[in-house]
Amino acid sequence: MSTVLSIESSEIALAWWTQSVQRSALQDMLALCGGRDVISFALGLPAPDQFPIEAIEESILKVLDSEPRALQYSPPLQTLKRQIQTLMRERGVYCSTEQIFLTCGAQQGMNLLARLLLDAGQGRVMLEELAYTGFQQILTTMQADVLTVPTDSETGMDVDAVESLLSAGARPAFIYAVTDGHNPLGVSMSRAKRMRLVELAREYAVPIVEDDAYGFLHYERDPIPPMRALDDDWVLYVGSFSKILAPSLRAGWVIVPEELMSSLSIVKEATDIDTATLAQRIVSAYLESGRQKDHICKLRSLYRGRRDAMLSALEEHFPREARWHKPTSGFFIWVELPRGVNTSELLKVAIEEANVAFIPGEAFNIGNRRGPTNALRLNFSHPTPEQIEAGIARLGRLIG
Amino acid sequence: MSTVLSIESSEIALAWWTQSVQRSALQDMLALCGGRDVISFALGLPAPDQFPIEAIEESILKVLDSEPRALQYSPPLQTLKRQIQTLMRERGVYCSTEQIFLTCGAQQGMNLLARLLLDAGQGRVMLEELAYTGFQQILTTMQADVLTVPTDSETGMDVDAVESLLSAGARPAFIYAVTDGHNPLGVSMSRAKRMRLVELAREYAVPIVEDDAYGFLHYERDPIPPMRALDDDWVLYVGSFSKILAPSLRAGWVIVPEELMSSLSIVKEATDIDTATLAQRIVSAYLESGRQKDHICKLRSLYRGRRDAMLSALEEHFPREARWHKPTSGFFIWVELPRGVNTSELLKVAIEEANVAFIPGEAFNIGNRRGPTNALRLNFSHPTPEQIEAGIARLGRLIG
Repeated sequence: MSTVLSIESSEIALAWWTQSVQRSALQDMLALCGGRDVISFALGLPAPDQFPIEAIEESILKVLDSEPRALQYSPPLQTLKRQIQTLMRERGVYCSTEQIFLTCGAQQGMNLLARLLLDAGQGRVMLEELAYTGFQQILTTMQADVLTVPTDSETGMDVDAVESLLSAGARPAFIYAVTDGHNPLGVSMSRAKRMRLVELAREYAVPIVEDDAYGFLHYERDPIPPMRALDDDWVLYVGSFSKILAPSLRAGWVIVPEELMSSLSIVKEATDIDTATLAQRIVSAYLESGRQKDHICKLRSLYRGRRDAMLSALEEHFPREARWHKPTSGFFIWVELPRGVNTSELLKVAIEEANVAFIPGEAFNIGNRRGPTNALRLNFSHPTPEQIEAGIARLGRLIG
Repeated sequence: MSTVLSIESSEIALAWWTQSVQRSALQDMLALCGGRDVISFALGLPAPDQFPIEAIEESILKVLDSEPRALQYSPPLQTLKRQIQTLMRERGVYCSTEQIFLTCGAQQGMNLLARLLLDAGQGRVMLEELAYTGFQQILTTMQADVLTVPTDSETGMDVDAVESLLSAGARPAFIYAVTDGHNPLGVSMSRAKRMRLVELAREYAVPIVEDDAYGFLHYERDPIPPMRALDDDWVLYVGSFSKILAPSLRAGWVIVPEELMSSLSIVKEATDIDTATLAQRIVSAYLESGRQKDHICKLRSLYRGRRDAMLSALEEHFPREARWHKPTSGFFIWVELPRGVNTSELLKVAIEEANVAFIPGEAFNIGNRRGPTNALRLNFSHPTPEQIEAGIARLGRLIG
């Protein structure tokens, strides 16, 4: 019946944002690398053999055997909020459970906060010139106006530039900042910059959305607490279990002032209903087992080793003119190659001739802004040290 | 430190929509009924003792034991799309896997479609005067302009009114329709109305978002296929595993023309990353076990019995002037009481004096529109037949 009655093609009118958006380069990369024998430094994936499968299995069985509402609609899990409250103390953050809101991962946390703070089509956000593509997609689908400040792979966000814009009258709905293990730059902000940015937020009444997806994975002694530890009112914190437990559980949280909770709950309900998910219950049972602390320590040690393996390999195989910084958190090293090298061109050759993948720095430029073409983002959490050594050596030979 | 430096209270400026929105009455109801010995006809919950816990446990163990990427980021699950393709044939819908997009439940399906089709702050949607509150929250958070058409608990959406508005020049971004087991009215549209609405969508180039969350739960012979079975181009279909498997898995899907897929994928990525969830893998393993068909049959039989128990109880205990319709699908019966009865007032008395809960019809009015105050929505899927008989008897005594 449908073939007879249908008109020739669909011409459904779509929202404006669809005209300005491109498929994410990272999704293409996921497709490109799948099924090939490629050493990939491209995506920000956790090490595949480190998921605590048995502990998660036990947690699931415990939940299904003991919790009659495990499969039903029920209110967001209070127990998990208390566990997150405890977990946050490790980051130097003290908050109440009434300030914790459960989300489906950090991406949803950022999306909900953007929809809470931004008027679609007219909102304005301040962020660095290079930013996580998932956050850029939020801005695009909301047609947000973007105010950028310079950034640097050794010192991070240019907080002086933030101050200049604010003192000149700019009033974005919020400032987006990645305090630790910046994606893509790998950098962590200094304590002084954190304090200054928080002061600016208060002074100009502009909230900060603090993306701390990588914050628990720090590799040096005495990590600096996130900005949320400095301020309860103007820092809206985004956390995630994806990197410290498992991405496919889709579990994360945000910490916001209590008075934002009811509006946040409404935008969550509108998004996918604000109900306890089976995944939340699994995470909670897992945390209750007490194994999280050792697991995070193990991950830190593993990723520290891979970071160091990559730093050594870069030292050995990359040209002397190349520059990079030693990240103290997260999954990435940002490398700037000599000016003549175009990393988008290099990627094609790297995949074809050397079976190595990475993300060219250009992929993280905001909007259509043109940035340097000689940078690349390298992931060190997913490949083994052997793959790191081999892949960096192959890349080094290509760069010459 | 934070107490010393903090200003007295947060004054974060929020998006406009937050000023016009109220917390959902259903969330309040969930809180109100929790922990009390209330017979609740209020929420649309599946029967709590019917979840196939053992089959789900087996599915989870199978996934974790056999699928190395079960806990990792990976592309949306192609296997599940093929299984949904097969499942849809039971509804008379034939589609390709390239037209199927996986979501976190039907609510997310509707949300993503709204964000794909509507320009926030200026979009317009056509729907019935009484509608599912979760859909209304999407409209509110997007500040959509609303065009309503009359509806009726015996015949459903007034399709003539749709035609009048369209022929007078109205061009909403889409029409929202619940073809079967309407929430809150319980009504299913006649075959003639389905066909006419699809013709109007084509004629005026206005797509239909078809919410089929309850469509697999039909209680009579020869159910009428949904509108998606009549048209591939203008009907965007929303389906869910929440009512036929388990809500806490958060698994659903939409079926749209293939050319919308890339934009849909972008808005999903912006929302919570378009990755295979553990829940999707569990659903897929469960479907592979082949038990879904029997399970749905069992649910149909159970809910048919509860519907009939409620109809009998209404017949016996409610006043002769009260009116209701026999639903052929879904979870709800809509009852109109004599004009003098205010059901919002009745609810307070019912909870206080009779330990019975329901949702007053007014909760489903669009925006601030005032509708009849003498209607109520009764859920028959969650209470047992004994609770239905007892609860309706108590309500009947209150109405007098």
